[in-house]
Amino acid sequence: MSSSMPSYVSTVRCKVPTDTHSIPNLLQAIADWHGLVYGVDMLASDDEALEVDVTLACKDAQHTEKIRRKLDKLDEVEVLGVHDAIVQAHLGGKIEIGLKRPLKTRQDLSRIYTPGVADICKMVAADKKQAHRLTIKGNTVAVVSDGTAVLGLGDIGPEAAMPVMEGKAALFKNFADVDAWPICLDTKDTEEIIQIVKALAPSFGGINLEDISAPRCFEIERRLREELDIPVFHDDQHGTAVVCLAALLNALKLVKKDIKDIRVVVAGVGAAGNAIIRLLMREGVTDIIGCGRNGSLGRFREEQGEERQWIAQNTNPRNVEGSLKEVLKGADVFIGVSSANLLDGDDIATMADDAIVFALSNPTPEVDPIAAGKHARVVATGRSDYPNQINNVLVFPGLFRGLLDVGASQITDEMLSVAARALAEVVEPSELNANFIIPGVFRPDISKSVARAIRHAAKMHSLEN
Amino acid sequence: MSSSMPSYVSTVRCKVPTDTHSIPNLLQAIADWHGLVYGVDMLASDDEALEVDVTLACKDAQHTEKIRRKLDKLDEVEVLGVHDAIVQAHLGGKIEIGLKRPLKTRQDLSRIYTPGVADICKMVAADKKQAHRLTIKGNTVAVVSDGTAVLGLGDIGPEAAMPVMEGKAALFKNFADVDAWPICLDTKDTEEIIQIVKALAPSFGGINLEDISAPRCFEIERRLREELDIPVFHDDQHGTAVVCLAALLNALKLVKKDIKDIRVVVAGVGAAGNAIIRLLMREGVTDIIGCGRNGSLGRFREEQGEERQWIAQNTNPRNVEGSLKEVLKGADVFIGVSSANLLDGDDIATMADDAIVFALSNPTPEVDPIAAGKHARVVATGRSDYPNQINNVLVFPGLFRGLLDVGASQITDEMLSVAARALAEVVEPSELNANFIIPGVFRPDISKSVARAIRHAAKMHSLEN
Repeated sequence: MSSSMPSYVSTVRCKVPTDTHSIPNLLQAIADWHGLVYGVDMLASDDEALEVDVTLACKDAQHTEKIRRKLDKLDEVEVLGVHDAIVQAHLGGKIEIGLKRPLKTRQDLSRIYTPGVADICKMVAADKKQAHRLTIKGNTVAVVSDGTAVLGLGDIGPEAAMPVMEGKAALFKNFADVDAWPICLDTKDTEEIIQIVKALAPSFGGINLEDISAPRCFEIERRLREELDIPVFHDDQHGTAVVCLAALLNALKLVKKDIKDIRVVVAGVGAAGNAIIRLLMREGVTDIIGCGRNGSLGRFREEQGEERQWIAQNTNPRNVEGSLKEVLKGADVFIGVSSANLLDGDDIATMADDAIVFALSNPTPEVDPIAAGKHARVVATGRSDYPNQINNVLVFPGLFRGLLDVGASQITDEMLSVAARALAEVVEPSELNANFIIPGVFRPDISKSVARAIRHAAKMHSLEN
Repeated sequence: MSSSMPSYVSTVRCKVPTDTHSIPNLLQAIADWHGLVYGVDMLASDDEALEVDVTLACKDAQHTEKIRRKLDKLDEVEVLGVHDAIVQAHLGGKIEIGLKRPLKTRQDLSRIYTPGVADICKMVAADKKQAHRLTIKGNTVAVVSDGTAVLGLGDIGPEAAMPVMEGKAALFKNFADVDAWPICLDTKDTEEIIQIVKALAPSFGGINLEDISAPRCFEIERRLREELDIPVFHDDQHGTAVVCLAALLNALKLVKKDIKDIRVVVAGVGAAGNAIIRLLMREGVTDIIGCGRNGSLGRFREEQGEERQWIAQNTNPRNVEGSLKEVLKGADVFIGVSSANLLDGDDIATMADDAIVFALSNPTPEVDPIAAGKHARVVATGRSDYPNQINNVLVFPGLFRGLLDVGASQITDEMLSVAARALAEVVEPSELNANFIIPGVFRPDISKSVARAIRHAAKMHSLEN
């Protein structure tokens, strides 16, 4: 998952002789092995040896380890330890609990705990809706995973999924002041997950499902949406779909094509692909083809699983049968949410003029973005080292901010559309170009724009119902 | 649950005429109805009216509401609103998420989220123990309740239990820097609660069960202790037992009685009573009688439920059969964890010389502490407005601090004993007297003392095993 540029920062603690050549030799050796030295900090010295911290950037953890081993083999260097910046950023976890008010005096204690808290318990017992106002429920989201589809790593289990869910909680807080708590479940059973999340719901104002493998994620989300009175969102599906739609709306402005007229090919019909196809159809796309590993889906072939079968029955109006490469010919838009290196530049050249390519497989896109850019007008990826990063963090914080602000009980399809439009409109007309169809994640007010749109949509929805 | 002293602080916003008598009249009226005025803040005024905030203390919410209604009936006063200090202390909940490190730059994002986080996921996937070091597991406790036995309020449901569990989380953070998260479950089914807590365990370093009614709490705790590899603690049982033992150890120093020689009567054989009896027996008490609503338990009568049956079989060596009042005669120690006003001063007078009375029912003790104090040498309650408050917050923060510090996999009976001894020893010999057998909750270093003792006991335990 690491970038190919040396951005993996570590500090290597070494013992070297006190002679004047030892440090230059050390640094030269690191440079020879393609490590980028940031600086050297002298820690201690005696008659015989210097202790130094060398902070350096490598390509990834493996590269750092290789340099560590090579340094250790040098006659005059002894490596005392390696402190990895990523590990350091994770020591003790990434989030913690904070108190919203001081707890220093007996009066504080009497108010937030016994005996005062009993009054609040009685108020909530008498009227459950007070929980939104008087407990953390009003600002809290559970980030729930079973660890079965974590990043590109697959089924790594609940403990190993925690760093991602903690990171997600940190993003929720950082970008939208939402208090999210990571919950990684030690079960993969669909019914059990549904039952557990339902039992947890009294403490939360929303549920963000995350990295649960398809097709279980569809059933889990559908059932929880039906059975809970708080919003349930599967970010891998709808978060990705919303950012895709936002980017597509802006890209279409550039190429001056109408969304109703375009031909779209989506590679990957799992969680993300399924949600992208449905959201684009809702927005008026009629000619859309989903591709799995065995080529295009359509009425010509039975599919396993309810969602794949739905795609087969409801998309591909021209009944185009063939491999991804074959069905891509003449398409206006390619959206890849599948796996690395499925296409090359020549394939992109077969698309329509002013083609739009979103190659979102991470870390390695479906097609090399540089090669794609030679034939397509707009290229976006999921990576942070190219322009136009399709990143879910552009949506989920603001989306839940808006939902919590109005105490929404559900997420409607309309809300997904308005979130996408709000996100697209963060890019000013004067800014819009092929390298800027979607704002960067640190651009201010993104979550505020999305939240405002969601609050408005929620109010419209409750007026209609 | 409120104290009888006026400590319930509210702010009443009123509109009154501008004449010079209106404010004095207002204040006099409040004084007549036994409200204690802290101060008056002038907010706005025009030719006809003044807007003022009157901050006052009442006995409880009902008292405040009564004064509000009476004020509103006065000719010249219009009440615009009441802001209750306890409600204000709960608005939006009492805890929030904090980021342990800044998330302001792309480099921050790459370290704590993708792509850097993938390295951490892989490290934990390869070695689950790394979760203690690299995720929040190492400092996190789940405060789990089903809302069935909340304070003295009973089965008020999961939403209404949240204020207590949030308060508990705030205490954990405040007193021992433990990150606790409140989880109120929408189920009362024993097996389901066990299954859910087991599924949640990967994300937590410990489980604090709270306010789950007996006898389900016994089975839930026992099974979770057997089936999980992190410490499981039911605070209503063991927290209370540990503080009781600490207070008793100091009280016995005062009266110069040996714990092996004393006669103890425990009123209440639910969660707390059961744990107190077992811990005292472990400490060498041999003559102990448990009393339920129908009087003393003993081999002379069959009991329902495993725990009550165990008490009947293993306590009451002299086979004393009778009501609480009857079996109390001659006892050295009374410990009440049952309900209000079971005894009066005359009953305490029938106890042995230098009697010790812990009347812990809350808010109203088993015996009036003033009346008891006329006949007993030492009196303690669960209330904050008498000396010697038996308060669980003296134990659970430091206990879990110690357990998390060493990554303990369980809580042993020995740890409960050492925690009690460490807590007792916080009171210096020179400080010890009948009104100071247990330290106040804000006394510094209580949790550090308890944590130190727990760490030591955990190390001894792992050496032995």
